[in-house]
Amino acid sequence: MLPSQPQCALLSTQVSQLLELLGQEPSLRQQDTTAIETSLKKAISPKFEIVFAGAFSAGKSMLINALLERELLYSAEGHATGTECHIEYAEPNQERVILAYLSEREIQEQVMALCQPLGLNVLENSHILQSETIEMLQKGCRGIIEAEGGPSKSERAKQAQALLLLLQGYKDNQNRLHPVNNATFSMEQLNFSNLIEAASYARRGSNSAVLKRLEYYCYHPLLQDGNILVDLPGIDAPVKRDAELNVRKIQDPETSAVVCVLKPASAGDMSQEETELLDRIRLNPGIRDRVFYVFNRIDETWYNAQLRQRLDNLIQTQFRDGSRVYKTSGLLGFYGSQIKKTSSRDRFGLDSIFAESVKGLGGEEDTPQFVSEFNNYCANSRKLTRTQFKVSVNGYETPNENYVRILGDWGESLIEQLIADSGIEEFRSAITRYLTEEKRPQLFANLADDLQSLCINLQKTFLTQYRELASQPREVEAMKAQELARLNQELQEIGAHFRQHIETEVNEIVTNAIASLRKTFGS
Amino acid sequence: MLPSQPQCALLSTQVSQLLELLGQEPSLRQQDTTAIETSLKKAISPKFEIVFAGAFSAGKSMLINALLERELLYSAEGHATGTECHIEYAEPNQERVILAYLSEREIQEQVMALCQPLGLNVLENSHILQSETIEMLQKGCRGIIEAEGGPSKSERAKQAQALLLLLQGYKDNQNRLHPVNNATFSMEQLNFSNLIEAASYARRGSNSAVLKRLEYYCYHPLLQDGNILVDLPGIDAPVKRDAELNVRKIQDPETSAVVCVLKPASAGDMSQEETELLDRIRLNPGIRDRVFYVFNRIDETWYNAQLRQRLDNLIQTQFRDGSRVYKTSGLLGFYGSQIKKTSSRDRFGLDSIFAESVKGLGGEEDTPQFVSEFNNYCANSRKLTRTQFKVSVNGYETPNENYVRILGDWGESLIEQLIADSGIEEFRSAITRYLTEEKRPQLFANLADDLQSLCINLQKTFLTQYRELASQPREVEAMKAQELARLNQELQEIGAHFRQHIETEVNEIVTNAIASLRKTFGS
Repeated sequence: MLPSQPQCALLSTQVSQLLELLGQEPSLRQQDTTAIETSLKKAISPKFEIVFAGAFSAGKSMLINALLERELLYSAEGHATGTECHIEYAEPNQERVILAYLSEREIQEQVMALCQPLGLNVLENSHILQSETIEMLQKGCRGIIEAEGGPSKSERAKQAQALLLLLQGYKDNQNRLHPVNNATFSMEQLNFSNLIEAASYARRGSNSAVLKRLEYYCYHPLLQDGNILVDLPGIDAPVKRDAELNVRKIQDPETSAVVCVLKPASAGDMSQEETELLDRIRLNPGIRDRVFYVFNRIDETWYNAQLRQRLDNLIQTQFRDGSRVYKTSGLLGFYGSQIKKTSSRDRFGLDSIFAESVKGLGGEEDTPQFVSEFNNYCANSRKLTRTQFKVSVNGYETPNENYVRILGDWGESLIEQLIADSGIEEFRSAITRYLTEEKRPQLFANLADDLQSLCINLQKTFLTQYRELASQPREVEAMKAQELARLNQELQEIGAHFRQHIETEVNEIVTNAIASLRKTFGS
Repeated sequence: MLPSQPQCALLSTQVSQLLELLGQEPSLRQQDTTAIETSLKKAISPKFEIVFAGAFSAGKSMLINALLERELLYSAEGHATGTECHIEYAEPNQERVILAYLSEREIQEQVMALCQPLGLNVLENSHILQSETIEMLQKGCRGIIEAEGGPSKSERAKQAQALLLLLQGYKDNQNRLHPVNNATFSMEQLNFSNLIEAASYARRGSNSAVLKRLEYYCYHPLLQDGNILVDLPGIDAPVKRDAELNVRKIQDPETSAVVCVLKPASAGDMSQEETELLDRIRLNPGIRDRVFYVFNRIDETWYNAQLRQRLDNLIQTQFRDGSRVYKTSGLLGFYGSQIKKTSSRDRFGLDSIFAESVKGLGGEEDTPQFVSEFNNYCANSRKLTRTQFKVSVNGYETPNENYVRILGDWGESLIEQLIADSGIEEFRSAITRYLTEEKRPQLFANLADDLQSLCINLQKTFLTQYRELASQPREVEAMKAQELARLNQELQEIGAHFRQHIETEVNEIVTNAIASLRKTFGS
């Protein structure tokens, strides 16, 4: 999994030696070495965190599902992911999920912070989470919501609703919380039999309110070599603590790359939150140019020429280098990959994947969102105009009937076309190529860049010392010669080691990467 | 146009007399009469301002177009209306538009306000709008936009872009601006030959930046009796001055009714701006319960069962009385009414109404947004499943080909069905009924309510005075009797007049309204 670890240790020692040499020279001691330290940390770190950032309705979770070709994070349109999610590598038979809860102290702080603007009086910190106080506060919240006319009728009502969920979450999960630490539990400890059950528990408002983090450990080649995908609540999340989490994570030196999931494909321009996000990314030296721009919901531009022109214009003028710009539809890509496994026997997923969402009221079947989008793709996207697919969507059939008939007629090759048009595969290959071929060489190149000026300065200093010694009276000749030889050799050794190391490292990684790519893509 | 004006004058005199009586009584002089004055002003005002408020992309302008069945305000998705628009009544042959510009002083203030956070130094207020300073500032803005990587790449770039537009607008329109007043110009003075030309001038960013207000005078029955529709920039407008205009207008005592154009039909829930809007409306005593809630873009719920359930739930729990809740698609309603006038000769509008938007790049025709939505309606909305319309949308034809073929086959009756499903007619009849039948009686009822407590207090005081006089020694008997008779008669007269007036008023308006309704709807 991490073949380069022994070399990493060597590299770390060598850079430390260089920094030590620097520390021994009074004239150089003042030099700022934080950039080098950051680069070194990134280059030798076994982990590489890729943060998915964007608006709460930009479809980040669906994009991650599409990338990994499985439904990992629950993502329903309009329902924000409230909790930070980490997705790390696991061997196929060791998949698991771990839930990390807020500490009682953190919950207490949040309760206090919500009570104050609501004018709910709490006498003493330490008694907030006693059951009488909780009941009193719940009553107060319900009163506020009633008076405002509903839980989302005003900002005040929304705050009261958030407090209500937090208190309910505390009551429901009290036995799992620790006074000051973030208690963690495995899926098994909480009696969930699979990932879906755990996700469904975690997305319930009251549970989500007291969960700090979800950690999924999944088998997927993309996650090898320490890659971690991080899904955050949206940058425009309605709850303040969630929105702040984004800012913190973007500023975190642990963050190594960012996938910006942007909405202009549906909104026509970038929102204030989105421009602020781009500003913040630029300020984190740990990220550098490791930013992927994904314009998700690209399907909306198929049906709206104005949107399409506006997006093209935005990309041309403001994302000029264009090298890491992708246009995707996470929804079409993800469900496309899922329905490949279905057939007419389960009505291409209506009776399996979508069984829950077709359950309508009053006996009539509902249309899953994907089915609507699929039919619209077939009828109106212009993607099929010049293909072999001669598809008709009939207004006198229900959307589900159209869907089953069309897939019955055109089957897998139409699904392949849909997936290709979703742009997901292009994005997946690009990010895979980056993570397997480019990532480590680039991290070492960054370190080498940062080290260069340090080495030049050291060389200059030693040269000056040499000249000074050379100009001193002859009697100390022997001593001088010895000292000089020592310094010279030390410097040369480190330089040679370092150069050789970088070479080996880069070669080995490229070789590994190509081998692993071959394995992954079966070529 | 205003048949009740003479009575209004009488009413005003009578209420003034009552207030005068009140002023003569030392014990009552302190009573707060602002509510009565506001109610009186509303009841006798020749104008009734209906403000359309909502997010900038909620489709307010399109809804107004649909209401009036004509393209008045330019509304392109994603392009915000930047300027306040007033739409008032005109006789059919007297339609016109008037453009009101910012004063030079107002522009200067805005320039100052934008320069400061951008760090652009301006030495003295009075010299800002000199051409060298303007050039210097324009250069500064361009530099900032270049450095940020594009005009919408960051908040700083957006501010610089706003300043650039304002300066350009000042230069382009300099000869039309007044130092301290808001200069106004008619369409003819500006050499526009029709409303569309004027609207197209006004929506250009630089012109929009220096325009304070657009006043349209149009013939439409809805606008009779002093009704004025006011379209504002969105509550979430990107430029601060535009967002503030919304707040000011909602708090303005001149505002008599509000049409809240809300987005949950597409967004799933109410945004912070929307809940704040509802809060603000409640605080304006001039609006009372004269609020219409319009969930626009309802068509999005046809294609997404989750959105539909969420909206139904929102309406059931938080708009419980439900009496003034409407679900509309302004786009389908408006263009539906427009294409009724077209035929296969102009390809149902593709060669007339949509001639501009089908002009694609590279020889291929673009699809107008309405055509995409129309086809989706036909294929996927389930609205046609149980009708006589047997429509197919074919993936091997272009959207425009499908559109022309379907309308050729099913023609006007399908358009009627589309318009009915758009919910626009229902909303139009409701608002027309309100404005012609309910508005004035309700305004008078409000006044009567507010006057009631005043009359009761006056009566009490006079009764006390009577008792005091009655208990005084007999020698002044004659004088007392005379004084009492006078007071009594005065009070009775005013009471009788007032009651009679309200009756006549209400009767007359109801009769007029019914007659006008008959005329409007041809029954």
